[in-house]
Amino acid sequence: MIIDCHGHYTTAPRELEAYRQSQIAGLGDPSHVPARGTLNISDDQIRESVEKAQLRLQRERGTDLTIFSPRAAGMGHHVGDATTSLHWSQACNDLIHRVCNLYPRNFVGVCQLPQSPGVPPANCIGELERCVKDLGFVGCNLNPDPSGGYWRDPPLTDRSWYPLYEKMVELDVPAMVHVSASCNPAFHFTGAHYINGDTTAFMQFLTSDLFKDFPTLKFIIPHGGGAVPYHWGRYRGLAQDMGKPPLREHLLRNVFFDTCVYHLPGIEVMAKVIPVDNILFASEMVGAVQSIDPETGHYFDDTKRYIDAIPWWSDEDRRKIFEGNARRVYSRLNARLSR
Amino acid sequence: MIIDCHGHYTTAPRELEAYRQSQIAGLGDPSHVPARGTLNISDDQIRESVEKAQLRLQRERGTDLTIFSPRAAGMGHHVGDATTSLHWSQACNDLIHRVCNLYPRNFVGVCQLPQSPGVPPANCIGELERCVKDLGFVGCNLNPDPSGGYWRDPPLTDRSWYPLYEKMVELDVPAMVHVSASCNPAFHFTGAHYINGDTTAFMQFLTSDLFKDFPTLKFIIPHGGGAVPYHWGRYRGLAQDMGKPPLREHLLRNVFFDTCVYHLPGIEVMAKVIPVDNILFASEMVGAVQSIDPETGHYFDDTKRYIDAIPWWSDEDRRKIFEGNARRVYSRLNARLSR
Repeated sequence: MIIDCHGHYTTAPRELEAYRQSQIAGLGDPSHVPARGTLNISDDQIRESVEKAQLRLQRERGTDLTIFSPRAAGMGHHVGDATTSLHWSQACNDLIHRVCNLYPRNFVGVCQLPQSPGVPPANCIGELERCVKDLGFVGCNLNPDPSGGYWRDPPLTDRSWYPLYEKMVELDVPAMVHVSASCNPAFHFTGAHYINGDTTAFMQFLTSDLFKDFPTLKFIIPHGGGAVPYHWGRYRGLAQDMGKPPLREHLLRNVFFDTCVYHLPGIEVMAKVIPVDNILFASEMVGAVQSIDPETGHYFDDTKRYIDAIPWWSDEDRRKIFEGNARRVYSRLNARLSR
Repeated sequence: MIIDCHGHYTTAPRELEAYRQSQIAGLGDPSHVPARGTLNISDDQIRESVEKAQLRLQRERGTDLTIFSPRAAGMGHHVGDATTSLHWSQACNDLIHRVCNLYPRNFVGVCQLPQSPGVPPANCIGELERCVKDLGFVGCNLNPDPSGGYWRDPPLTDRSWYPLYEKMVELDVPAMVHVSASCNPAFHFTGAHYINGDTTAFMQFLTSDLFKDFPTLKFIIPHGGGAVPYHWGRYRGLAQDMGKPPLREHLLRNVFFDTCVYHLPGIEVMAKVIPVDNILFASEMVGAVQSIDPETGHYFDDTKRYIDAIPWWSDEDRRKIFEGNARRVYSRLNARLSR
């Protein structure tokens, strides 16, 4: 079985965006009372939205299951307040749930959290619990920068995160660290903000002792870990100069990397420096880059090809990357798949 | 000849820091009139500060010349106002000039610019001109985020930068894009802010047509280009999806990468995807990581070893990386070295 741990519902029916626009319009109207509202999308619309996109790509590329979450850029935690974010997150998560129910062999859910700038992350516990317990989701996406590119909230190692981490540990679900859209003109979203968010989160973990406090807490850093494997020597050296333990011991029981790196030489450096047990297959499809690489004749985001091309990975290594590690990190996946 | 294009004066005598602290103390005193002040450092102090550090490392590692600039984290453009920044930049640049005069075969100067948040970059033209024309410097370090980790100023492609770029073109000097310290608790300076700054700048260039307006403007992106070579497929794909020309044509006549990547697998991915003509040898010594890699027994930042170890680079390739490209990009270097 081949599990893609990083897929977003970027192809949702346009009614979802209309719902969001109406929510945003309400924010500008002082007489408006925020309400969850309704979202009218039929099962057929959902089928159409994934049949021609994610499901077709799964078939064409030979992957089986996508760990599926709302569109990352769409999370927009900087918009409105915590109530805005809760209503929007519930709408997005419920839609993921419907996709997963329609295609239980192809999709398993991961939720968006109702984060909001300046609001303690403990506020997200209710929605996380609902998604895991009621909807059968296996993880969450956690935004290290709810301000949308201005980085005004405390780092991921701040104690304000601890109540959410305690709930993640209790529910046995990991978080993928994933920023949302950038409102900052300095940062292009998929080309700079996403990658910077990954690098930043890793360095926050490195400088802290978070995993002494939470030895079973698990994070996936997407987009191949941002800049981290490329600069693995720098990170090993920085940790050493700070008197931290070696990275394997300090972070790699808790921090994992996905394979959303869109060329073979990138996957090669990851394969050389990151232990196989810490790598989870992912393609981010349908995502940041949607065209064919003229140098190879294949889609940039057809990342399975790069993994297949690493000569020193054994069949057992590839089984871990494609399936075993995802089942271990998203621990609830086994129960979910045996239903 | 082996030219290291990225060295900072991180070992300056402590009088420099005392000068800065006194300058900062003055900012808090409403009756204080900002003045350039004096900095009493003897030639012997300067000799001592580099003999045991940069000069010793040059000898030990077999490099010849360092393109030398003030400490990057020390630039602190967010401190005070444009006058604060001008006085501090002049003090730092004059000190670099003294190092270069004492050791003209070992150091050539690159200046810090007196940037200040919200102040148009044109304000830096005077100091750039002084450093190039009067002090014989061959380039400048340009901070894409004078706010120190909050990214409140316009991107490098904004037209407010154009007067400075016009002067760079006129003087025929390149800029190394280099952030300074981070005041933002989200970003560790050498582990996150530096690398993010590099990635961010590259993506700003990618989304723009800056080099149509300035076909001879040249930037060096340090720290191996941040995350860029690792994600080269992503950047090629993003450019393609945006309808931009291939990156070689779109950016690589103007954008260069240094080799401050502290392990061989990192340099390998750079060597696979970045054309040899766009790679400039650098070590950032004495810099971010100062210890020995227990996996190799050599200093992490002894980057010459990694370049020597790439089997598919020819002697001619290595001559370009070690010398030829630096002479081409820092075009004033030839005249400076033949004095």
